[in-house]
Amino acid sequence: MKHKVDLNCDMGESFGAYKMGNDEEILDYVTSANIACGFHAGDPATMRKTVKLALEKNVGIGAHPGLQDLVGFGRRNIALSPQEAYDLTIYQIGALSGFVKAEGGHLQHVKAHGALYNMAVKDAALSEAIAEAVYKIDPELVLFGLSGSEMIKAGEKIGLRTANEVFSDRTYQPDGSLTPRTQSNALITDPQIAIEQVIRMVKENKVATVENIDAQLLAETICIHGDGIHALEFAIQISKSLKRAGIEIVKVSKFV
Amino acid sequence: MKHKVDLNCDMGESFGAYKMGNDEEILDYVTSANIACGFHAGDPATMRKTVKLALEKNVGIGAHPGLQDLVGFGRRNIALSPQEAYDLTIYQIGALSGFVKAEGGHLQHVKAHGALYNMAVKDAALSEAIAEAVYKIDPELVLFGLSGSEMIKAGEKIGLRTANEVFSDRTYQPDGSLTPRTQSNALITDPQIAIEQVIRMVKENKVATVENIDAQLLAETICIHGDGIHALEFAIQISKSLKRAGIEIVKVSKFV
Amino acid sequence: MKHKVDLNCDMGESFGAYKMGNDEEILDYVTSANIACGFHAGDPATMRKTVKLALEKNVGIGAHPGLQDLVGFGRRNIALSPQEAYDLTIYQIGALSGFVKAEGGHLQHVKAHGALYNMAVKDAALSEAIAEAVYKIDPELVLFGLSGSEMIKAGEKIGLRTANEVFSDRTYQPDGSLTPRTQSNALITDPQIAIEQVIRMVKENKVATVENIDAQLLAETICIHGDGIHALEFAIQISKSLKRAGIEIVKVSKFV
Amino acid sequence: MKHKVDLNCDMGESFGAYKMGNDEEILDYVTSANIACGFHAGDPATMRKTVKLALEKNVGIGAHPGLQDLVGFGRRNIALSPQEAYDLTIYQIGALSGFVKAEGGHLQHVKAHGALYNMAVKDAALSEAIAEAVYKIDPELVLFGLSGSEMIKAGEKIGLRTANEVFSDRTYQPDGSLTPRTQSNALITDPQIAIEQVIRMVKENKVATVENIDAQLLAETICIHGDGIHALEFAIQISKSLKRAGIEIVKVSKFV
Repeated sequence: MKHKVDLNCDMGESFGAYKMGNDEEILDYVTSANIACGFHAGDPATMRKTVKLALEKNVGIGAHPGLQDLVGFGRRNIALSPQEAYDLTIYQIGALSGFVKAEGGHLQHVKAHGALYNMAVKDAALSEAIAEAVYKIDPELVLFGLSGSEMIKAGEKIGLRTANEVFSDRTYQPDGSLTPRTQSNALITDPQIAIEQVIRMVKENKVATVENIDAQLLAETICIHGDGIHALEFAIQISKSLKRAGIEIVKVSKFV
Repeated sequence: MKHKVDLNCDMGESFGAYKMGNDEEILDYVTSANIACGFHAGDPATMRKTVKLALEKNVGIGAHPGLQDLVGFGRRNIALSPQEAYDLTIYQIGALSGFVKAEGGHLQHVKAHGALYNMAVKDAALSEAIAEAVYKIDPELVLFGLSGSEMIKAGEKIGLRTANEVFSDRTYQPDGSLTPRTQSNALITDPQIAIEQVIRMVKENKVATVENIDAQLLAETICIHGDGIHALEFAIQISKSLKRAGIEIVKVSKFV
Repeated sequence: MKHKVDLNCDMGESFGAYKMGNDEEILDYVTSANIACGFHAGDPATMRKTVKLALEKNVGIGAHPGLQDLVGFGRRNIALSPQEAYDLTIYQIGALSGFVKAEGGHLQHVKAHGALYNMAVKDAALSEAIAEAVYKIDPELVLFGLSGSEMIKAGEKIGLRTANEVFSDRTYQPDGSLTPRTQSNALITDPQIAIEQVIRMVKENKVATVENIDAQLLAETICIHGDGIHALEFAIQISKSLKRAGIEIVKVSKFV
Repeated sequence: MKHKVDLNCDMGESFGAYKMGNDEEILDYVTSANIACGFHAGDPATMRKTVKLALEKNVGIGAHPGLQDLVGFGRRNIALSPQEAYDLTIYQIGALSGFVKAEGGHLQHVKAHGALYNMAVKDAALSEAIAEAVYKIDPELVLFGLSGSEMIKAGEKIGLRTANEVFSDRTYQPDGSLTPRTQSNALITDPQIAIEQVIRMVKENKVATVENIDAQLLAETICIHGDGIHALEFAIQISKSLKRAGIEIVKVSKFV
């Protein structure tokens, strides 16, 4: 059977007069869009426009809830309770769903943003709160999480479909976690190496770690970045390389 | 046929550590709750709790979208475009719908808050933008608006059920509009007079105006206030008086 | 005596991960910087960096208070009371002064932003509230306002030095006010015409209006824009042209 | 020599339509007021009014900077860098100083709020960033911090006067830190025990800890709470008891 993978990208992160990302162009190369919901980025007008664009390009729409920290872009850990995480997840999925419904589409998935995503990786209670929020909004939604993380476990436990996510431009630790950005070897800057890592993850479920031993993982969706001057270029390149390697790029809801 | 009227009250206006209103007690005497959605008041935790309470007490749940002006409590006019009004209405109805769905309930109505409500009274374009947002989220929703206002006309035009709202504690102008709060005779402070005004509006579709001539209006839902030390007392009193006058107090979605 | 004029530009309008403007480059060509204070744009980190840059380049530092409307970039009118305008002006000047003091500089001027600036043009009470806030923080500050506007009158009345501001890229009405942006002929898009208009305003205190008759005005400071791809280019061009016309470009506090 | 102590209380924590605390009454019994600066609580109007009240009652005015987390009341840890802490401290002290200057008063002290205060207790880098911000605004300011904490050390190191703070209603650990609120024995609910603990701290520089051995500490200022129904009552009681015990209640700037 042919290998399949989803390509996802954060979108709709502009805010008022502030522009971020190349949403319209990137949407031609990804199959799932994680749309910011106004807490860490995004605003109602941006959400409407981004949902519309994603629908036009037949890209799977996801809510991308984040911590309420606009000035920190949702990247700073906030010590919140599972209940607070549940509440802000419901709120933000709901808000995005409003635009999806108004535009006549449907929501495919949920992916937590930044610090919320990262805190959930090893925090079962936080992951379960987020998974419960997703499930209660709609049990058909796909929950994204770092491959093998507590988020994936929480999703499976409550009965959601899950998408194990991998990163092309990040190095991995032997336990399958990402090397923290605070370490010098956290990022892969050579696009060719990034693409080779991703292809191996999809085909062999393996990644070479920083300690040069392989870690096992599932690669159902690949995160690519939409911001920065090379973002579009890389999106095109990874898309081509995956196809050339015989991997089908498909919206995640079609195969998980 | 017996006269029917809905009693509505703003709810869920607490924010973080800040408490406002007597939601739990007031819910025993109203049939529709307008729940703040986080822009002018309210936060995700408060929305969850208020939705839950309203469901337990079988009170009709409404989204209560407001301008993004927390420090001004949504009471200061902001010169926004119809498109901006549409967007913030979709966002806020969506967010509240998330909690309603998660708690297994359904949304009954939408009532704009404060300055958004007041600006829409005489602004057809703004009213139509709000009505369109409501319709696109769910054409079964009931749209609240000042009796006879542009909001009601916009709702009817797009095909929504509408609820003509009257105020017990406000005086009226000959054209059926409310006397602006900036005028000294804007408020009715005697509860007995307030209640008599309301009963006449429901039974005769008439209100004595400040110029001592009657204005015609429809009274399908009565706004009562949930804040202040006499709020609960007045809720009990108006509820009793309406019943004593042979008026049935019924959730608005049952009869409009 | 040689003609003198100040060149001012809005600065420090980035916010968190969102970048706006070319502050560092533009600072080489202006004599006064209006630094956003966190309400309509800007954040503490941006304020610190921008103050530092302005001091290094010996540019006069101004507080640029705006309405509390980040998503609307402070460009939407909000119906606020003079007291509210006073309060938010004190707050924002104070906040910026903190950074100015910490960096060992001193504050030169205050210029209201966007809708606050525009609402004050014809609103004496609002202008007086803003002027009072400026005066109470420091009576040595220079108050910027549209040439001939209520803001200038309010500044003079309370005893502040004032800077009559003109716009190079906007057309004027016979009464000396700016043509509203909602009108098609509001903007001057040809840099050459913009520059000629400015030179005439500085040298002759006159501007040709949209009705082809001249209006009288004072041109003590010229507003140029820091955002957009041609901003830097225009800053260089206007700076050169003014000098070539024998006009000295000097920090406003040196000559008003 | 007579024992001296300062009584401080958080103030100005209302926000827009939301009221909190009994500032006016409490101000009769304290010598230092920590006034919220708009990030975790407070708004420009509240800051103006509270500064005015404190000046009228001759109470020492302090800036009370907090994390930018209004919905969490600044009580949730946010993983911010020392630079970010420096920036938000400068911003908030500056903003409050604006009102102090406008009202003709002067700023006495700075006390960090909630999570910012607590995170700084054991974090030297964070404490040094806050102390540097205070020093750069005005080296005459008094820096408040938990008795014996990193904040006090950072203040001393940079050359600020410091005020070692103790809590009447909290239990202590053998190392002099507060028992975390998550533990059941964190709070002292009996006012009599609270007062005895405080008197002993002031007179003997000792406190009985939860492990029944004494810890050494300095008690230069006592934190009392302004919110809750018994706040005023307790303020009166502690004030009387301290005086009866021969302790003079004096504004902190008079004796540190």
